[in-house]
Amino acid sequence: MSASAAPEPNPQSLEERLRAVARDRYHDRHPFNLRMHAGELTPAEIRRWITNRYHYQRHIPVKDALITAKLETPGLRRMWLRRISDHDGPRDGEGGLERWLRLGEAAGVDREVLLSGERVLPGVRLAVEGYVNFCRLGSPLQAVAASLTELAAPDIMRTRIDAFEQHYRWIEPEGLAYFRTRIDQGGRDSKEALALVLDWAREPADQDRAVAALRYKCDVLWSLLDAVQHAPQEGDGR
Amino acid sequence: MSASAAPEPNPQSLEERLRAVARDRYHDRHPFNLRMHAGELTPAEIRRWITNRYHYQRHIPVKDALITAKLETPGLRRMWLRRISDHDGPRDGEGGLERWLRLGEAAGVDREVLLSGERVLPGVRLAVEGYVNFCRLGSPLQAVAASLTELAAPDIMRTRIDAFEQHYRWIEPEGLAYFRTRIDQGGRDSKEALALVLDWAREPADQDRAVAALRYKCDVLWSLLDAVQHAPQEGDGR
Repeated sequence: MSASAAPEPNPQSLEERLRAVARDRYHDRHPFNLRMHAGELTPAEIRRWITNRYHYQRHIPVKDALITAKLETPGLRRMWLRRISDHDGPRDGEGGLERWLRLGEAAGVDREVLLSGERVLPGVRLAVEGYVNFCRLGSPLQAVAASLTELAAPDIMRTRIDAFEQHYRWIEPEGLAYFRTRIDQGGRDSKEALALVLDWAREPADQDRAVAALRYKCDVLWSLLDAVQHAPQEGDGR
Repeated sequence: MSASAAPEPNPQSLEERLRAVARDRYHDRHPFNLRMHAGELTPAEIRRWITNRYHYQRHIPVKDALITAKLETPGLRRMWLRRISDHDGPRDGEGGLERWLRLGEAAGVDREVLLSGERVLPGVRLAVEGYVNFCRLGSPLQAVAASLTELAAPDIMRTRIDAFEQHYRWIEPEGLAYFRTRIDQGGRDSKEALALVLDWAREPADQDRAVAALRYKCDVLWSLLDAVQHAPQEGDGR
């Protein structure tokens, strides 16, 4: 409002700014997700997405271990270790990665194809690598703030379950267990991470860094879908 | 034996070579530990050691999180997460770090002094930083092989418990819980890590890297005690 030379503090609270990024830049607005949720994807496109998104999924415990290494107290590390356990499971045959493999099987993608990684698109590899390195090299604040796409995750999971049940009935319903589990886990994770970010980012410069980190993470997810959307049709990702 | 120009494979098995390093270069031979176990340390020296070694202890979960980020399967990560949980505990007031804080209290070092880190010697900081960066930057094989000082840990824990009970009776016995717990944990951890290293290091070059990693780790522990041993006497580490 004023013509002062010093930068004005952002009139929005940090929480408002973060929620605005998660609302405006989350990949639920990406054309590929819009088509997915409208029931317009072919089986080959669904399979290509499952195959490529698994490359992201399998790196979640890696980036969470890198974040854990940045946390300075047993209590904070314990909080973050639970995220790793959510994906890796308490034993073989359980956990989020296993549920994603079963989603693949329900949609007709062999788990060996997912585990091999051989059909992962270059743009997907680079997006995932970028995110892992962001968590490796960034500050704890930046790495935790980047996780706040979880703020929007429960809603997209609900939308996706409805869409799959309505439009993609050729996928066995038990394959959707990953999405169902992430509704509660995403809500809990985002609540914890938001509290940390709001506690750590008191200075305007840190608040700007947190917002930038979340925008970066939205770009990662967006770029991943760009690669999936524009993939060559030959082989159909299967 | 032969005069061949190509390097001879080491006639010892990898396990023999690793056990030889743990036997010959472990810090149980360091003059400071020899004096500790012979009952020759002053209370001020014991306290200085507890204070400085805590700086190492508190970085164990950090290096283990960095190792976890290098492991590629849920099963391996689960194995390594347990090490983090051993030190951080399942809840506040439990775990190895808490037991070390209680060792300090039993020996007359306030936990606030340990938590502040303000009395940590420069050589100790550098040794710990070196080890954490080794785990951050090295290969999974190197990082896991470096953990194999655990092969010798149960023996030194037993020696230490006997020495403390015999020579340092001014330390309350419940303060020794850390050492007691590490006998079993160290045995289990070293068995798991040795199996991984033997599985991964089939090529002579990898076997040499594993041996070098363990020698490096022995140097870290040795250097830490050098710093403690040669610390200025003023303040006595309290």
